Amino acid sequence: MLANLRIPGPTACPPDVLDSLSGQMINHRGPEFAALIERVTDRLRPFLATDNDILILTCSGSGVMEAAIVNTLSPSDKVLSISIGAFGDRFGQIAETYGAEVTGFSVEWGQAADPAAIAAAVAEGDYDAVLLTHNETSTGVTNPLEALCAAIHVADAKPLILVDAVSSAGCIPVEPDAWGIDVLVTGSQKGWQVPPGLSFAVVGPRAWDAYENSTMPRFYFDFGKAREMLAKGQTPYTPAVSILYGLDVALERMALEGPEATFARHHRIAERCRRGLEALGLALFADRGVVSDTVTAVKVPDGVAGADLSRLLNQKYDTVIAGGQAALAGKVFRIGHLGWVEDAHIDDAVEAVGSALAELGYAIPART
Amino acid sequence: MLANLRIPGPTACPPDVLDSLSGQMINHRGPEFAALIERVTDRLRPFLATDNDILILTCSGSGVMEAAIVNTLSPSDKVLSISIGAFGDRFGQIAETYGAEVTGFSVEWGQAADPAAIAAAVAEGDYDAVLLTHNETSTGVTNPLEALCAAIHVADAKPLILVDAVSSAGCIPVEPDAWGIDVLVTGSQKGWQVPPGLSFAVVGPRAWDAYENSTMPRFYFDFGKAREMLAKGQTPYTPAVSILYGLDVALERMALEGPEATFARHHRIAERCRRGLEALGLALFADRGVVSDTVTAVKVPDGVAGADLSRLLNQKYDTVIAGGQAALAGKVFRIGHLGWVEDAHIDDAVEAVGSALAELGYAIPART
Repeated sequence: MLANLRIPGPTACPPDVLDSLSGQMINHRGPEFAALIERVTDRLRPFLATDNDILILTCSGSGVMEAAIVNTLSPSDKVLSISIGAFGDRFGQIAETYGAEVTGFSVEWGQAADPAAIAAAVAEGDYDAVLLTHNETSTGVTNPLEALCAAIHVADAKPLILVDAVSSAGCIPVEPDAWGIDVLVTGSQKGWQVPPGLSFAVVGPRAWDAYENSTMPRFYFDFGKAREMLAKGQTPYTPAVSILYGLDVALERMALEGPEATFARHHRIAERCRRGLEALGLALFADRGVVSDTVTAVKVPDGVAGADLSRLLNQKYDTVIAGGQAALAGKVFRIGHLGWVEDAHIDDAVEAVGSALAELGYAIPART
Repeated sequence: MLANLRIPGPTACPPDVLDSLSGQMINHRGPEFAALIERVTDRLRPFLATDNDILILTCSGSGVMEAAIVNTLSPSDKVLSISIGAFGDRFGQIAETYGAEVTGFSVEWGQAADPAAIAAAVAEGDYDAVLLTHNETSTGVTNPLEALCAAIHVADAKPLILVDAVSSAGCIPVEPDAWGIDVLVTGSQKGWQVPPGLSFAVVGPRAWDAYENSTMPRFYFDFGKAREMLAKGQTPYTPAVSILYGLDVALERMALEGPEATFARHHRIAERCRRGLEALGLALFADRGVVSDTVTAVKVPDGVAGADLSRLLNQKYDTVIAGGQAALAGKVFRIGHLGWVEDAHIDDAVEAVGSALAELGYAIPART
């Protein structure tokens, strides 16, 4: 029996997507590949709500976050890194690694960033760029991205806005063009119903201007080469062809469902997950007003060890959940509900959590 | 009908490898994944003839070439870049991109580097590192790597030796430990019978010392984080799980054949390819003494357009060959014979080339 894989990526993929991965290799410089990459790029577009360039890189989410930075910034650039969790911290670390002068703006984990506070912070600093997380996988919080972008745009300095949408795009509405996002990045293994190996970047005109003046070093992650080769139906370096086969099938499925229905499904199932967990007497880690529709973080109840819960779920209930990251290790567990997810996946997972917790001595409150 | 894919990567993969790609996702932080990455790392070892660290990255060959540089060097380091073709040029460009002071040593395309000349060049420069290509995919030449390494080791400066073995490892013997190679890199889609998406780096003790002092920026490609996470049976960032499934099956196949038999098969089939093409009256591009056992570059005969040959082979003969790269565009065509390759694949390709050339007006010499 296959486990119910409920981590927030890699996510379980539909059978037809998995089957498509077995296709034989083709020439990545030939006409068949050109048709493939043009087709998937076009089909990504409605889900990413953009007319800007969409580039496909062979790497995971952290790779494309690095790409967003090294293609637009220069060492010593002033960067405001707004972090609401582990992945927000990572985005800032990448900018620091490449020599940016990073000012951290850390929000208490479990909360979202407040647009007014961000507007004030941006006004103080004369920043070249602001780094934002759309959906923070470590805490189960979704930032009010549209409002945050609007707050940043009020600033005189007009910093670039670089957004990590790795665990939101394809599941939660994001509108880079309408909201004025200069680079938005996401990864195949999150909301796209595809295994890991590919990442996508939406690159807007202000980012391309910045690219021309940016002096951070880049080779494998060079957006300019990717754009130039995409015009010929190619990638600069050999891409993960199999994952592109899967993406082709996944996007066909997603086109049938349509963006609005896909986003609505994620919201409905996330709420089902949250209510189910709350009915077990559990407390969500995130503030209820900013909970994520792709991943739910739950406080491990007193008297239970998080590692025991994960192990028992895995070994006895064929259910794979994620633990807490960094400071949250042992304090929260997380359930992913993104990509190919249906009611039954979540109902089964919630039921398994309840059974495992009971077995570990946790008293589930009686239903009223 | 599936085409006879005879480009030097991505290479055609065996059916059982392709089937294995369809496996459902697993937790990349769980015990099943740990067993997988430990198993494939162990199974890579005999083919890479090393006791040093083997790291698996999610990227293509150019990505891991970048990793070799940014993990060991610092801006302003003096680097001797020995190039015998397009990929050798690329290796030097990556080092330049990151600020190394690169001295190019270019060998005429079609020739290998001469150990005595390299010894002299290394003695002149007090270099921190030497970049070498084992097998140059663009020209079909294999460098005498053992002799080149020995020549470099004579120098007082003891530069690091970084080797691009992307299109040789797994097919042609390479012994990083015995030959004193500090970093050796290769890619899944070449000799490893697996689709693109993964790359491997063999990192020796002198490279780890250099890593400690290296100041080039790195995040996604950080060898130190990869080593640290591998000790826990993980990768720092979400890996291309499906391609690891394929690698697991491919390495099981390769273990059954064994390194010596695998290398012998490549040599035998390469020679079969070369003789078949010569029997058509065609001239190899590479010097006969340094021809590659993984890819053969052939001069396009007078009166034939390279693009016409490729197109006709593709459209009428279901055979996909590679054209020439950079300065060789239109002047050579290339046939890959690496990874999952058997006599019939090559016999069919050579026959197709003969038929297509005849159709394009080329006079095949009578057999004597």
